[in-house]
Amino acid sequence: MIYMDNAATTWPKPPEVIRAVTGCMENYGANPGRSGHKMAVQAGQILLYTREMLCQLFHVPDPFRIIFTYNCTDSLNLAIKGSVLPGDHVITTSMEHNAAARPLKELEKHGLELTIVQAGPDGSLDPDDIKKAIKANTRLIVTTHASNVTGTILPIEDIGKIARSHGIPYLIDAAQTAGVLPIDLSELPVDLMAFPGHKGLLGPQGTGGLYIHPEIKLRAVREGGTGSQSESVFQPDILPDKYESGTMNTPGIAGLGAGVRQLLKEGQSKILSHENRLGKLFLEALSHIKKIKIYGPSDISKRTGIISVNIENKDSSEVANLLDERYNIAVRGGLHCAPLAHNTIGTFRQGTVRFSYGVFNRLDEVKSCIRALEEISRD
Amino acid sequence: MIYMDNAATTWPKPPEVIRAVTGCMENYGANPGRSGHKMAVQAGQILLYTREMLCQLFHVPDPFRIIFTYNCTDSLNLAIKGSVLPGDHVITTSMEHNAAARPLKELEKHGLELTIVQAGPDGSLDPDDIKKAIKANTRLIVTTHASNVTGTILPIEDIGKIARSHGIPYLIDAAQTAGVLPIDLSELPVDLMAFPGHKGLLGPQGTGGLYIHPEIKLRAVREGGTGSQSESVFQPDILPDKYESGTMNTPGIAGLGAGVRQLLKEGQSKILSHENRLGKLFLEALSHIKKIKIYGPSDISKRTGIISVNIENKDSSEVANLLDERYNIAVRGGLHCAPLAHNTIGTFRQGTVRFSYGVFNRLDEVKSCIRALEEISRD
Repeated sequence: MIYMDNAATTWPKPPEVIRAVTGCMENYGANPGRSGHKMAVQAGQILLYTREMLCQLFHVPDPFRIIFTYNCTDSLNLAIKGSVLPGDHVITTSMEHNAAARPLKELEKHGLELTIVQAGPDGSLDPDDIKKAIKANTRLIVTTHASNVTGTILPIEDIGKIARSHGIPYLIDAAQTAGVLPIDLSELPVDLMAFPGHKGLLGPQGTGGLYIHPEIKLRAVREGGTGSQSESVFQPDILPDKYESGTMNTPGIAGLGAGVRQLLKEGQSKILSHENRLGKLFLEALSHIKKIKIYGPSDISKRTGIISVNIENKDSSEVANLLDERYNIAVRGGLHCAPLAHNTIGTFRQGTVRFSYGVFNRLDEVKSCIRALEEISRD
Repeated sequence: MIYMDNAATTWPKPPEVIRAVTGCMENYGANPGRSGHKMAVQAGQILLYTREMLCQLFHVPDPFRIIFTYNCTDSLNLAIKGSVLPGDHVITTSMEHNAAARPLKELEKHGLELTIVQAGPDGSLDPDDIKKAIKANTRLIVTTHASNVTGTILPIEDIGKIARSHGIPYLIDAAQTAGVLPIDLSELPVDLMAFPGHKGLLGPQGTGGLYIHPEIKLRAVREGGTGSQSESVFQPDILPDKYESGTMNTPGIAGLGAGVRQLLKEGQSKILSHENRLGKLFLEALSHIKKIKIYGPSDISKRTGIISVNIENKDSSEVANLLDERYNIAVRGGLHCAPLAHNTIGTFRQGTVRFSYGVFNRLDEVKSCIRALEEISRD
């Protein structure tokens, strides 16, 4: 199997990640922050360790500004619903995944005012269009960091500067970029960052997080036991407890810590240049196959490890099935949970065949994908 | 280490559970329901398998009425917030964990009307008191199935009958009972059941679920990508997708399936009678130690595997620490995230020393606990 579905979840996971999950379950699988015994303390320590690994990667000084969630969707729901109220105005883009678009559209039914700024046909966004959309009641700007359909990287630094100059919190969806692109939260004008644990960070599914800037106040959206302030029937106001009700996914978080440690050990820039090498070869070769249409920017530095294509008018899911059945290549066809983005790039009916490569893909695998596409396009 | 903290999370996990988690991560760790390739299909199959295992255990005919969540707190938040609106009245009890109490108290700030029915000093509840609390605007009754402080089993069948006869949905918190007591949802008048995956069901942390009766309509509380109806920016209305946004904890759910399979294989009644044997010995022996106060009912059939005690006026956390440090016994002291229950049994200041045993505890471990308590109470 050639796994080219890393934008959905990365695979394989490093053996260190699997060992960390197993080790937690076998050796100290107690409930962190609940009891005071040795195993519970050790379980608590692994949560802190993973927070610290994430802080190192994202340049966050205070580990308690990293909140654990269960996936990037959970993080986005918390960040959005904890920030805005009916009557507020939110700006987002036409490149969003449904993880951001669906909570926003749901809130719109209940009195939220929503502006969806249109991106260009390659997924690129002009920060000025965000600026023009700002109103007196704008309370949040939400954009993806990079599209899960085209891989297009959005100008988050410019958007963040605009947000800061207007005093509007800025939330980025780092589903495709956390662990993939360098993200320095000590420099970037970003107030909230939602990220999955199981994609570029190489951790297990069932993990995710939200970075919350020290000046941001968020309401909790899930109350419950936190192991802290047990005497109160009200949610504690301290971080991270305020947002971390209920038993954490401790084994998953142990795995996430090991994933981030591997990233830091390998070096993010080394991984990125490997992925860019694959991407460059892939894009270059595909540009010579006549029947293939490539979406997104042609400059590899403007995209993450996603290459979405179509073969003339062939249904994207059919092509994806062919790749799976005939070539043992795992890709995703269809709309990738991002209908707005497909409207933007003109593929709402056809979808796209999405190849998404990662740190563990090799050059010969990319070559096999190219050969397969050549053959199918000759059919 | 003698692990007596199974009410927080069960430990050890069966090797089958750990193998299932590892096997998923190693062999088919794709994103279920997203892509159509073989690995994604296999990941989707394990979700269905676990749903079917849970259906077998709880006697639920339709696997799609079992929703996966991330812990019991997540399930309770969904069940409560998806059910009621400001102006509605909710009845709950003074034995609830903060996982139910905190979301309810939060909603009360925003216009929910809340009645907390008082339980007796042993945690027992008179169903008639629930009946008396019903008003014209009562929209939900929420009770724990068994207290996490005293182990007291609540009369859910009687409460459910009252709820049904008034047409009010009934939500139970099965945090302490799922996998421990027989629960037949084809017979019980229960409309919503929140349960953790990592306690009596022997699965990994980061898993949980919610059973939703076919006649219950719930709003979603977390929107996002579901892999279904990708063309729509609105949350799908189909089950289970409506409530399962974002990437699932597939390895955790694989482990949960293996945990439930082990339960079914061993036989729940066999496990229960083992646990009751431990409990009976424990209770009987403790009743002869003069300085020890035992909380909850003296009849073992009226409680789950929890024995909460105090030694005269000794601080419960101090006793818990002593047990850990001097005897290598892992218990929990303090309030166990259930302040209402401690008010009810009169231990709000002192807390309790909670021993919670499970399927893997042995008689000699219980005897060691008894000896340790004897020694400490002689100090």
